Amino acid sequence: MTAQSVMIPWQDRPEDCNDIMWRFSENPIINRYAIPTSNSIFNSAVIPFEDGFAGVFRCDNKAVQMNIFAGFSKDGINWDINHDPIEMQAGNTDMIESDYKYDPRVTFIEDRYWITWCNGYNGPTIGIGYTFDFKEFFQCENAFLPFNRNGVLFPEKINGKYAMLSRPSDNGHTPFGDIYISYSPDMKYWGEHRCVMKVTPFEDSAWQCTKIGGGPVPIKTEEGWLLFYHGVINTCRGFRYSMGAALLDLEDPTKVLYRTKPYLLAPAEVYELTGDVPNVVFPCAALTEGDKVTVYYGAADTVVAIAFGYISEIIDFMKKNSI
Amino acid sequence: MTAQSVMIPWQDRPEDCNDIMWRFSENPIINRYAIPTSNSIFNSAVIPFEDGFAGVFRCDNKAVQMNIFAGFSKDGINWDINHDPIEMQAGNTDMIESDYKYDPRVTFIEDRYWITWCNGYNGPTIGIGYTFDFKEFFQCENAFLPFNRNGVLFPEKINGKYAMLSRPSDNGHTPFGDIYISYSPDMKYWGEHRCVMKVTPFEDSAWQCTKIGGGPVPIKTEEGWLLFYHGVINTCRGFRYSMGAALLDLEDPTKVLYRTKPYLLAPAEVYELTGDVPNVVFPCAALTEGDKVTVYYGAADTVVAIAFGYISEIIDFMKKNSI
Amino acid sequence: MTAQSVMIPWQDRPEDCNDIMWRFSENPIINRYAIPTSNSIFNSAVIPFEDGFAGVFRCDNKAVQMNIFAGFSKDGINWDINHDPIEMQAGNTDMIESDYKYDPRVTFIEDRYWITWCNGYNGPTIGIGYTFDFKEFFQCENAFLPFNRNGVLFPEKINGKYAMLSRPSDNGHTPFGDIYISYSPDMKYWGEHRCVMKVTPFEDSAWQCTKIGGGPVPIKTEEGWLLFYHGVINTCRGFRYSMGAALLDLEDPTKVLYRTKPYLLAPAEVYELTGDVPNVVFPCAALTEGDKVTVYYGAADTVVAIAFGYISEIIDFMKKNSI
Amino acid sequence: MTAQSVMIPWQDRPEDCNDIMWRFSENPIINRYAIPTSNSIFNSAVIPFEDGFAGVFRCDNKAVQMNIFAGFSKDGINWDINHDPIEMQAGNTDMIESDYKYDPRVTFIEDRYWITWCNGYNGPTIGIGYTFDFKEFFQCENAFLPFNRNGVLFPEKINGKYAMLSRPSDNGHTPFGDIYISYSPDMKYWGEHRCVMKVTPFEDSAWQCTKIGGGPVPIKTEEGWLLFYHGVINTCRGFRYSMGAALLDLEDPTKVLYRTKPYLLAPAEVYELTGDVPNVVFPCAALTEGDKVTVYYGAADTVVAIAFGYISEIIDFMKKNSI
Amino acid sequence: MTAQSVMIPWQDRPEDCNDIMWRFSENPIINRYAIPTSNSIFNSAVIPFEDGFAGVFRCDNKAVQMNIFAGFSKDGINWDINHDPIEMQAGNTDMIESDYKYDPRVTFIEDRYWITWCNGYNGPTIGIGYTFDFKEFFQCENAFLPFNRNGVLFPEKINGKYAMLSRPSDNGHTPFGDIYISYSPDMKYWGEHRCVMKVTPFEDSAWQCTKIGGGPVPIKTEEGWLLFYHGVINTCRGFRYSMGAALLDLEDPTKVLYRTKPYLLAPAEVYELTGDVPNVVFPCAALTEGDKVTVYYGAADTVVAIAFGYISEIIDFMKKNSI
Amino acid sequence: MTAQSVMIPWQDRPEDCNDIMWRFSENPIINRYAIPTSNSIFNSAVIPFEDGFAGVFRCDNKAVQMNIFAGFSKDGINWDINHDPIEMQAGNTDMIESDYKYDPRVTFIEDRYWITWCNGYNGPTIGIGYTFDFKEFFQCENAFLPFNRNGVLFPEKINGKYAMLSRPSDNGHTPFGDIYISYSPDMKYWGEHRCVMKVTPFEDSAWQCTKIGGGPVPIKTEEGWLLFYHGVINTCRGFRYSMGAALLDLEDPTKVLYRTKPYLLAPAEVYELTGDVPNVVFPCAALTEGDKVTVYYGAADTVVAIAFGYISEIIDFMKKNSI
Repeated sequence: MTAQSVMIPWQDRPEDCNDIMWRFSENPIINRYAIPTSNSIFNSAVIPFEDGFAGVFRCDNKAVQMNIFAGFSKDGINWDINHDPIEMQAGNTDMIESDYKYDPRVTFIEDRYWITWCNGYNGPTIGIGYTFDFKEFFQCENAFLPFNRNGVLFPEKINGKYAMLSRPSDNGHTPFGDIYISYSPDMKYWGEHRCVMKVTPFEDSAWQCTKIGGGPVPIKTEEGWLLFYHGVINTCRGFRYSMGAALLDLEDPTKVLYRTKPYLLAPAEVYELTGDVPNVVFPCAALTEGDKVTVYYGAADTVVAIAFGYISEIIDFMKKNSI
Repeated sequence: MTAQSVMIPWQDRPEDCNDIMWRFSENPIINRYAIPTSNSIFNSAVIPFEDGFAGVFRCDNKAVQMNIFAGFSKDGINWDINHDPIEMQAGNTDMIESDYKYDPRVTFIEDRYWITWCNGYNGPTIGIGYTFDFKEFFQCENAFLPFNRNGVLFPEKINGKYAMLSRPSDNGHTPFGDIYISYSPDMKYWGEHRCVMKVTPFEDSAWQCTKIGGGPVPIKTEEGWLLFYHGVINTCRGFRYSMGAALLDLEDPTKVLYRTKPYLLAPAEVYELTGDVPNVVFPCAALTEGDKVTVYYGAADTVVAIAFGYISEIIDFMKKNSI
Repeated sequence: MTAQSVMIPWQDRPEDCNDIMWRFSENPIINRYAIPTSNSIFNSAVIPFEDGFAGVFRCDNKAVQMNIFAGFSKDGINWDINHDPIEMQAGNTDMIESDYKYDPRVTFIEDRYWITWCNGYNGPTIGIGYTFDFKEFFQCENAFLPFNRNGVLFPEKINGKYAMLSRPSDNGHTPFGDIYISYSPDMKYWGEHRCVMKVTPFEDSAWQCTKIGGGPVPIKTEEGWLLFYHGVINTCRGFRYSMGAALLDLEDPTKVLYRTKPYLLAPAEVYELTGDVPNVVFPCAALTEGDKVTVYYGAADTVVAIAFGYISEIIDFMKKNSI
Repeated sequence: MTAQSVMIPWQDRPEDCNDIMWRFSENPIINRYAIPTSNSIFNSAVIPFEDGFAGVFRCDNKAVQMNIFAGFSKDGINWDINHDPIEMQAGNTDMIESDYKYDPRVTFIEDRYWITWCNGYNGPTIGIGYTFDFKEFFQCENAFLPFNRNGVLFPEKINGKYAMLSRPSDNGHTPFGDIYISYSPDMKYWGEHRCVMKVTPFEDSAWQCTKIGGGPVPIKTEEGWLLFYHGVINTCRGFRYSMGAALLDLEDPTKVLYRTKPYLLAPAEVYELTGDVPNVVFPCAALTEGDKVTVYYGAADTVVAIAFGYISEIIDFMKKNSI
Repeated sequence: MTAQSVMIPWQDRPEDCNDIMWRFSENPIINRYAIPTSNSIFNSAVIPFEDGFAGVFRCDNKAVQMNIFAGFSKDGINWDINHDPIEMQAGNTDMIESDYKYDPRVTFIEDRYWITWCNGYNGPTIGIGYTFDFKEFFQCENAFLPFNRNGVLFPEKINGKYAMLSRPSDNGHTPFGDIYISYSPDMKYWGEHRCVMKVTPFEDSAWQCTKIGGGPVPIKTEEGWLLFYHGVINTCRGFRYSMGAALLDLEDPTKVLYRTKPYLLAPAEVYELTGDVPNVVFPCAALTEGDKVTVYYGAADTVVAIAFGYISEIIDFMKKNSI
Repeated sequence: MTAQSVMIPWQDRPEDCNDIMWRFSENPIINRYAIPTSNSIFNSAVIPFEDGFAGVFRCDNKAVQMNIFAGFSKDGINWDINHDPIEMQAGNTDMIESDYKYDPRVTFIEDRYWITWCNGYNGPTIGIGYTFDFKEFFQCENAFLPFNRNGVLFPEKINGKYAMLSRPSDNGHTPFGDIYISYSPDMKYWGEHRCVMKVTPFEDSAWQCTKIGGGPVPIKTEEGWLLFYHGVINTCRGFRYSMGAALLDLEDPTKVLYRTKPYLLAPAEVYELTGDVPNVVFPCAALTEGDKVTVYYGAADTVVAIAFGYISEIIDFMKKNSI
């Protein structure tokens, strides 16, 4: 990743708080109507860029069409989001169909910023694009056949190949979903698909018993890849999305070293409990600065919020509370 | 319509608001417990009457039985709703079964006030009744076979016949639904059924991709019939109801001249996001005064709220944002 | 009905048979491939015509498109079915959409032969047409809004109005369905909808506990309208269709005088148990000659078969075995 | 029940309130995070104990594992809940499997406190245990085969046998459910199962038309057993749980003397309308003092709240509003 | 069991047959119309009685009402089945509701013949009755709360208590189901419920991966209780029922010593592949004579058939092919 | 493909037959019990090999475990199928999980025989293997993430890359499915996924309106790739599988030149209408000799059958009956 000269958004843990991760007191940081056309802004990705941060935002417009927009911020909290969606140029292929774009992730590998998102191609699959400057964007071949969601690139090659997590799904409100890894020599052809993490038995950890999906780009630590992910339980009122974390082996990320049995963050605040889809905490990006980590998550499919933690504490918690 | 000597409820657009339609700052105007027996009051119809307004209100009682009640108001905001439901007498037929009544609409044609509602006759269908004075009410033949909802009369005959919009459905939480028109020479026998508007593809306008249904009685304008309607998207937490508008040809209302691709109003306020059925905005009536229009809508299947707009702006918006 | 100068197909009850109705020993009388394009021929209607019989046949072609075809026979058993489907001309309206046509019934009223069928208009509803000669056919307004199936006209006006049975449904493999009656002064506008017969409780008569639908045009007898109908039970392998009968009051057909608790005919022969939709007996027409009645039914959604009975015995059986 | 020397929590009816039952102004009394590991605390049971109250609380931990915890209070409002779940010892059998425990009820019979709960044994069934001191707990045979929920003991033997209400269910978000009674000579073998109360027709009382289940241990009154119970309606956004009451014959509790057609309490406050499962009011315990009754109920599957009423008024209301 | 002086039906294994169990060449032995009122006769139980055999037969009548009928045979192949269903008298309780009766099993314990069946009491549960002579029958308390099917008594007390296998279910075409055991001191109160056998993973033995249920009364052998059972797989055309066997520990029948991974008999003959419910082999009774065993099974929910085998070979096969 | 020195199975069109394709009079050619362990043999692939034919057969054993077996034949009709399933060695990767294998296709490219099948890896996906001699088999990386079925290789590289058709699905009895193409430089990494053919509207060609999937390896003709495929309609008794054909552009197979609107073969014979899954015709292989083509298809998921045609006639029929 590019050398990071800016400070990430941060707020110390409140005195009366014993939780591993805690929310920003000024949440949500991005309102649903932050740009003129938007119905909601959520499930978005940010990354250090130049002397501040750039982001790729999911903004559903008032026709509830899903698209991704570039945005910029000095402090990671106050954002200027473009009023027009990202326009793609042809990357490693002819321009391909894209009925909609949502739930972006962004990372820097070697010489450019790679973006992955859920791309509408006869149903959801994983779109891939890149930019050097967040002004011009180039769209590559979709990684997989439909139906897939939550495509998350690792921030560097592993054993000489690009590596991507994803969650095979179906074409609707998928009631199942495990996390897989796939490899590519060239960001065009993908293979060596392996299952990384499955849902848990209801009795063991119910918040992640229906489906799970990768969240922010994995964070490289000495002990392994720190993966924040979302887990879903199907209540009698529909899905509830919470956030947990796993530690994957650096060399072979199919090896799950630890995985949180309790969640790290679950819907409890009013902006998480009410909105277009109540009871959703959906992490899509993380910024780190030393041991600090700030997670960006969509709340209630309506707004963007952030939460904080210390990487060392999170890993320690995982070790003590691993499933 | 009878000459209208009273002023409709109105509040100017807030300064910082760029929306085509905006909410009343004192919403909701009718509380769920506004009459002693009520569990909720919503999806109701109002009309100018004498020196004020009359209304037909859906009040579900605390056994959650659905019925319609007459009510009166001087200003359209403060309402006296009768504590007993409307009792029907035989209209153009013998008294017919009515297991329940809900979601009324009301309009004035020629010499009387016509009421349509969802009538329980082995499932939902369209009930028709009339009154001259909102004291005595007469029930006619159901317009259609079950299963149907959202029967909305045009406020005058078209080509010499009564015309009604409706939405064929099934007997449950119908996951589909388009708007049809039917004609009648006599308010008893109906035919010439034509499809007027269908749901939109998910990619084009997702808020109205699952089902749509007519809202208030169409408003006659120089450019066409202005029809407010509701559209539904099926989220992983159930249905979400929003409001849009369409402009239908004056002579042949099966011709849709324009139709909003973005919604005009979608659930965002706390009284729309929480309640017996969260995330519902369901318009059932509109009052006009010159270019002003005040829309009455049920919020969260719990309370009644209103929103304002200018007809000319709405039509202009439709033209620029038509699907 | 026109004076009937021809003998209906008939075969006496086999000696060892105690059933009220019995099958033709040469069933099926029409093979699935009886015309060059057909995948299956079933659920079809016949009527005395000139010196023999005419029929309107449901022939699904090998693209499995559903359409209706005219056919002719001297004896009611050997049929010449046209190789091209019926082409409709405008009847009492402009030509209306017809995505498909299936399950016809035919009857003679006053001066012409009326045909009803399941007409594809954004889903199934009841199409109406007429012919004077089975050469030229005229299509009228659909009787109802979608979704509906099994529209069956009475063979004469009742109290001065046309009367039609139908079964409101949904757009798929409807898992419910009761029989209603509607009236029309003019075959264009319909109203006065009333429920005639509902499905039975599983414990009382399971073969008709899921849905029921009118079969052949009701037969006028001194004691009432004799209505053969189909009943459906939902097994763990899908629907099973059987045949029963009811006797409706001559003056007010909403009054069900008797109704068979046991079925009269249920799938048991190989041509009923195997085919495109196994376990279907679906009656669509009946010919009478004195006390004799010959019922035409579709078997396994694949072929046409016939069964015989005596009207007096059937009514007697109904009286003794009424639900 | 042991002589009760302490005062139950109480707050007089507000002046402007005409409801039969009213909420505590300081609701909820137990927060979702009241113990360090909890995600939510709700659907819990309390009983007079020593000079105050003891309780058995459903605390779902942050892995969303369901278990029951003992707790104590002087005033019934402020509670000390143990940080570790109840550990069971073998009661009238070898220790049996318990994948999870939830929705406890507690009562005193003869010489000990009996606890029933929903016990995970290859799906939910009714677990039974007892304690003398709320320190040591003993687990007995499950009362029934799976699948069952809402097992509620009567507070004394009836005709010499233990009696338990329960609601047979399936293994998921059961969409049906009636209340049955079963008897046992010894708390080990159960039989004489009878249906007590079924769901109501939608038209008659929709809030209890999908499923019902016993709530607090029945309260003995001169006129019969006063049973608070929950009723469920299935909306287009999922289940909504409300509370009603029934009066059962003292000698033969299968005889329902009265049953509320309107609900007594339905979700309307913010802590009932938002939370892990919005729109849930789920009573599990009641304390009485003379004519006063205080009902403990879970709100939104997240917190514990209380409501008040007078037994005589409730019975009077039942008589006037019985279904 | 009473001393058995009669020879069981038998036919040696065909020369070219290598199967462990083989069918009777004259199958089916009982036709669907074997009594005047029957629509189908299947899933029935037989037992040695006097100088031949008695049986309890499931005969669905032509209203498709399910009931049980007594029958008698000298050779176990040719049966005289009563034309009227069994009439029950009160056994160990007042007469209880029975909406329907199906799938009987019969065994002799101590002094009488015990019959269990699926009894309609607000849904299916396990009915219990007894007879001394197959003329007078006495109905006892239902064993369990609904919903349950396939109640099968052991032919003697185990550890001093009656023992029954059953399969908890739901109220429809249950898509799950494992086999449990319950005990009773007195045939009235039941408890000590334990899971005996669950469905198998699809990959291991797909024919029994959806649900399983006990078949004939277990056969006592030196090595254990020989339990024939049915297993179900859910195909894209619905359920398919096959037959396997398990060996349960004599002292503790919750211990499954062996269980067939391959089926012993699966639908393959025309009378098993076509009928009211195609592809069903459903065993309900077994007769033994030395090492020989004759299994009675319902075929296609329409007729009764038999198959033969040697107990020693079956046990040997189980040992070599146990899951 | 290797030079073919043997004659394919053939039988001239019967004199009275006007169909484009016709069945072998001795169908089925492989019985369900053709090897000792088999429950059924169907959906299998054959190819010219040495002086006759080799095949890869789907044999489900009597535990209904799905696996693939090698077989050999001199005439393509009489087959010797190995009694043990194919054992795979590591191909282009470490050995990967394979819970089950079914529905194989086989083709020869360059120097070896490639086999694709539905491979169980946490659900169905496309397995790839190769053999030089049908004795030793080597398993490669799965082509795709789950869930996928009907992977069909083209018999030669297209534009220098391997090309495979497949049908993304879900993990159950998938109720949707279109045909896609993917490319690979090395049989390990796959990309450039494009949709080739979608299901048809119900009104246009109902037999292929639910899902479609590639059948035999495409046949190279001068006019394009001849692809036999299966189409599925969802009846009220479950899925019905029929066979059609399409002609794909030689250079760019995403271009569909023609596609049969009518089916070429649909279930009509007793071995297609009854069996483990009735009403299934499922083609998996084709042999050609000049203009002749012999298609191997699974019938009723139970047996293997063949049908004949002339390529030129089939293409001609496609041109005249293209959708």
